[in-house]
Amino acid sequence: MDEIEIEFDTDDEVKADVLVEGLPGIGQVGKLVVEHLIQELKAERIVEITSIFFPPQVLIEPGGVVRLPNNEIYLWKGKEQSIAFLIGDYQSTSNEGHYLLCESYLDAAEELGVKRVYTLGGYGVGQIIDEPRVLGAVNDDDLVAEITAAGAVMTGGEPGGIVGASGLLLGLAKRHGIEGVCLMGETPGYLVDPKSATEVLTVLSRLLGIRVDPARLAEHAAEMEKILEKYQEIEKGHEEESLNYIG
Amino acid sequence: MDEIEIEFDTDDEVKADVLVEGLPGIGQVGKLVVEHLIQELKAERIVEITSIFFPPQVLIEPGGVVRLPNNEIYLWKGKEQSIAFLIGDYQSTSNEGHYLLCESYLDAAEELGVKRVYTLGGYGVGQIIDEPRVLGAVNDDDLVAEITAAGAVMTGGEPGGIVGASGLLLGLAKRHGIEGVCLMGETPGYLVDPKSATEVLTVLSRLLGIRVDPARLAEHAAEMEKILEKYQEIEKGHEEESLNYIG
Amino acid sequence: MDEIEIEFDTDDEVKADVLVEGLPGIGQVGKLVVEHLIQELKAERIVEITSIFFPPQVLIEPGGVVRLPNNEIYLWKGKEQSIAFLIGDYQSTSNEGHYLLCESYLDAAEELGVKRVYTLGGYGVGQIIDEPRVLGAVNDDDLVAEITAAGAVMTGGEPGGIVGASGLLLGLAKRHGIEGVCLMGETPGYLVDPKSATEVLTVLSRLLGIRVDPARLAEHAAEMEKILEKYQEIEKGHEEESLNYIG
Amino acid sequence: MDEIEIEFDTDDEVKADVLVEGLPGIGQVGKLVVEHLIQELKAERIVEITSIFFPPQVLIEPGGVVRLPNNEIYLWKGKEQSIAFLIGDYQSTSNEGHYLLCESYLDAAEELGVKRVYTLGGYGVGQIIDEPRVLGAVNDDDLVAEITAAGAVMTGGEPGGIVGASGLLLGLAKRHGIEGVCLMGETPGYLVDPKSATEVLTVLSRLLGIRVDPARLAEHAAEMEKILEKYQEIEKGHEEESLNYIG
Repeated sequence: MDEIEIEFDTDDEVKADVLVEGLPGIGQVGKLVVEHLIQELKAERIVEITSIFFPPQVLIEPGGVVRLPNNEIYLWKGKEQSIAFLIGDYQSTSNEGHYLLCESYLDAAEELGVKRVYTLGGYGVGQIIDEPRVLGAVNDDDLVAEITAAGAVMTGGEPGGIVGASGLLLGLAKRHGIEGVCLMGETPGYLVDPKSATEVLTVLSRLLGIRVDPARLAEHAAEMEKILEKYQEIEKGHEEESLNYIG
Repeated sequence: MDEIEIEFDTDDEVKADVLVEGLPGIGQVGKLVVEHLIQELKAERIVEITSIFFPPQVLIEPGGVVRLPNNEIYLWKGKEQSIAFLIGDYQSTSNEGHYLLCESYLDAAEELGVKRVYTLGGYGVGQIIDEPRVLGAVNDDDLVAEITAAGAVMTGGEPGGIVGASGLLLGLAKRHGIEGVCLMGETPGYLVDPKSATEVLTVLSRLLGIRVDPARLAEHAAEMEKILEKYQEIEKGHEEESLNYIG
Repeated sequence: MDEIEIEFDTDDEVKADVLVEGLPGIGQVGKLVVEHLIQELKAERIVEITSIFFPPQVLIEPGGVVRLPNNEIYLWKGKEQSIAFLIGDYQSTSNEGHYLLCESYLDAAEELGVKRVYTLGGYGVGQIIDEPRVLGAVNDDDLVAEITAAGAVMTGGEPGGIVGASGLLLGLAKRHGIEGVCLMGETPGYLVDPKSATEVLTVLSRLLGIRVDPARLAEHAAEMEKILEKYQEIEKGHEEESLNYIG
Repeated sequence: MDEIEIEFDTDDEVKADVLVEGLPGIGQVGKLVVEHLIQELKAERIVEITSIFFPPQVLIEPGGVVRLPNNEIYLWKGKEQSIAFLIGDYQSTSNEGHYLLCESYLDAAEELGVKRVYTLGGYGVGQIIDEPRVLGAVNDDDLVAEITAAGAVMTGGEPGGIVGASGLLLGLAKRHGIEGVCLMGETPGYLVDPKSATEVLTVLSRLLGIRVDPARLAEHAAEMEKILEKYQEIEKGHEEESLNYIG
């Protein structure tokens, strides 16, 4: 097994204009938006990524069949454009793995012919907000006008950072000659947040020039919250399994 | 020294139909069952695995002779089938090591001609249970009927995960074309649990088509509990040995 | 992406007589001095270093454009000498990375023709001091007289250590045939300390034979303190982004 | 820089019959004995080992000259035998590094022609003992009689482990065809313990067939205690230097 394995589901050539990342993160905002888009657009899975940098465990699917934790790329072919979506169970468990995984994703994006990467996430503010803003960041000055026109508020007036794949993909994309845009919905941080996700979806839809009904986002959020609780419960029961002891 | 060293005790070709894993874990359920099977069936050791991913120490055997911590494969040749058993002192100390060790075990399993892997473990429920169930998970839908017929309850009705070798071996086995079945006995989690082990042994025996007297499982559990206590005591005395300080 | 990437901004041959390191550290003393020197001398950036050993995130610049965390080398060409400056956002996140990064810096220094490395830092004393001393350490006995003549107090009367790049660069430089001098300003440790930086700058200026007005050091310190506070605030909001969870 | 660098001080062929290890550990017992032997026998340094697995810092020697943390091998040539001594500032900072360093030491030992390794350490009992015993462990059954005849008490009546280089060297030596003996003096654990060291020295001297006056062990212990305190003090002042922050 290589440190990171990227496997295409098909031998056919697949192409995409943009890649939209929604890996797990604060308030699950990015994941919620991308899962919603995959379902509403009926995107098809084209790539599976597994890695020794993901947690050393399997996930049990309904029906009792297990699978390795993974990240996946889905593809939606529209009339005028094709959109790839990056989604997954986990991000890297190590600092170095974050860099190596993101670099792999960009290699795959380049292979798909991607010209721009959108990374989605939540921006934790620690309290419930009535009208969450969508904060934007880019990896090239030329993108600012487009992003703000679509409704994002640029975060660069003050110093700050973006941790994990949503940030690293932008920073590393530049070297691949790929444009990078990060959209972060303000969110309390401790809840799966469909309201914040709706705002991010609105801005993203404008940028992508697509129309997606946000109605079922709240439903998806409720399901996700329930699944998260279950996992936490079960993982708590299993936690000693990962300890190293002798007998 | 390689990161992982797998050494066969014999140059003769050895073959096995299935591999049964019982590395340390919750309630020592898997380890208890596999140690019991090795003793009752008088299986012979055929492989020793050592690794830089195991804890950096040696174990003192009765008599004062030390040995590196290891994992081992034992082989039992029956009339109609051969069964390999994977057992050991520890699992990996790092996340990445878990993946690399399990992948090595499956390379060895493939070399042995193994067609199916059984992984055994405990399922921590946090309290004493009168009639522990045996929960099952598989790496292929086709295996569900056989497992439930043998008495296992499929866990897949609800989301969940299996941490460590018992999980990873299943997930990774699929890529090697090897069937994978995990059997987890419900157990409090904080005790070596012969009752849970007896239930797992019962289901496993049906699946393997072998008969093994569970009578001495309780004895083995008591011994194991005693050894574990000793280790904890002694390791506590030694714990500063692993600190890095200057003098 | 390699573990460490060192990229020169220009293809022209660039040369430097000495390298002055001011990476983040106690009281930001070293960083403060080197940033001040870069600004006052109008040094130009010649090298960018990125690495998987830096934190897995990007930094948002004013204007909303992100960049990878990095270390940089700046060059000032004087009439009689050229001075290179090493500065950056972070040091390594892992022990091993510290060694590998410092070794890379020295490879770059050798390529530049550097004959001596100055490393600057703070020496935490846990309380405010009226007249902070500048403590010195060297990687060769022959350097002691020069350093003390310039006003540094040798620390070697008592045992001690220098942690991170300021120390390692000295220890490793010897193998590259490069002289190494460390100057540490006494500082409380919990504040950005322009007073300590002024003392270090004074000693360093004598050693380099340059004149730099320290007047704006206090200004720089105040700005840096403000930026640090912002980062801490924002990073706190983002901290869960780096956690690995499922959804 | 390689992960581990082993450099011989001389190009002449050097040979040794045994290697005695005394790296830092519980009660500094092993280090105390080996430093004492090096001084009393006037052994000469023949090998320096540096590694990215040691802490990322330098140590300041009296006089203000820094050096990388290292491990060293000293050689004493007697009339009838040559003894090599392994001593050092630190052990590995990572689990994997422990294995890789010990394997390197054994490669060097093999090159020296070493037939037996003695590893020395303390055995923490958590309280002051009037007559500390010397506990022994070996990597081959044949060595038991010799060790016990010399006054060591075999520890193998009960299960246990030996953490760090003192243990790993024994376990790994077997693969190099090198005999291994570990001698551990009972010690409270929280003090530099010359009494325990004296007992270990007595048993070791019998085994090596040498005579060494233990009189100055108490002196050495007092010095070591003082140096340790200084380091702890100074390292405390420096501890934030190793943190990764931005400015």
